[in-house]
Amino acid sequence: MAPQSGTEKPMFAYSSITCQAKSGWSWTLVGLRLLAFLATAAAAVVMLLNKQTKTLVIATVGTTPVKLTLTAKFHHTPAFVFFVVANGLASIHNLLMLMVDLFGSKVDYKGLRFAMIAILDMLNVTLVSGGANAALFMAELGKNGNSHARWDKICDKFGRFCHRGGGALIASFAALALMLVISVISIVKVLKSSK
Amino acid sequence: MAPQSGTEKPMFAYSSITCQAKSGWSWTLVGLRLLAFLATAAAAVVMLLNKQTKTLVIATVGTTPVKLTLTAKFHHTPAFVFFVVANGLASIHNLLMLMVDLFGSKVDYKGLRFAMIAILDMLNVTLVSGGANAALFMAELGKNGNSHARWDKICDKFGRFCHRGGGALIASFAALALMLVISVISIVKVLKSSK
Repeated sequence: MAPQSGTEKPMFAYSSITCQAKSGWSWTLVGLRLLAFLATAAAAVVMLLNKQTKTLVIATVGTTPVKLTLTAKFHHTPAFVFFVVANGLASIHNLLMLMVDLFGSKVDYKGLRFAMIAILDMLNVTLVSGGANAALFMAELGKNGNSHARWDKICDKFGRFCHRGGGALIASFAALALMLVISVISIVKVLKSSK
Repeated sequence: MAPQSGTEKPMFAYSSITCQAKSGWSWTLVGLRLLAFLATAAAAVVMLLNKQTKTLVIATVGTTPVKLTLTAKFHHTPAFVFFVVANGLASIHNLLMLMVDLFGSKVDYKGLRFAMIAILDMLNVTLVSGGANAALFMAELGKNGNSHARWDKICDKFGRFCHRGGGALIASFAALALMLVISVISIVKVLKSSK
């Protein structure tokens, strides 16, 4: 922060106020980022491990049932793969930014650190939004089907798969909300840092 | 960069430099915003008007063919409805911000205008990303189907519908790229404006 006044006294007063404000902001931000990291990581892990195997009887020959084993996995659906990638990358981003928030004050250069963080936050919130919304609409299709396209719902067969996928979606949308708040704070910090 | 000397002369010289620089930035931004507005508006309108009616012969009774008329419309798919809403809202946002870029310098308050624009840009880029990605993965499903979920592709039947939907998607992703660049510029402007 460049002191801009000509006299010494007001300069120090202003500087101490911004330092206090910055400290308060920083701890809120660290807390929010930790929550966002946990939410994106949970979303990615739950979706990654989401798998359900079901054996259906499709016919009976004599008295012997003919069985068909079906497996629902996240990687059968491209939207869910993107969901895992987006949330995984956002987790890494939040973890790195957590490090920068905690230890990055030593490597600042002309306040560019805050602008850089704001830009990276903006890019990551875009990524999470894309992943979460793509998975949401695919999940809606799995739950309700689409009679116009003759796509039947599959959640009646794979209840647990859908249930866990729903959990991952809730975590991801919670992360999206947190990251929107974090992005707003990051932009406000750019404004404050350079004043 | 803040003038830090106590004399009057360098301050005025600096002021004229920033005005020139700001003007250059502003015109680039106006151009980018106009392109982004056109792209989101085109995406929304093309998807909104996307409709294909097809008559299929499903059986023949004697010599009389039994026909089935199917219509593919964007509003049969929730992801496409969200796509239209997201791109429509982003168009309105870009149009409003265009007005602010051109005429807003009179209503600025302590540089908060730039932070406000950066925050709104960030929210809108998130919205467009959600809409574009949701529609992309639904379009991919229409094009390739998903054998695991037994969802058949429909683009072999509704070629024109898929073709136009693809055009809308390209426009929306172009808008997303433009809005990412605009958001970065907006954040840099916050940094510059308050120095």
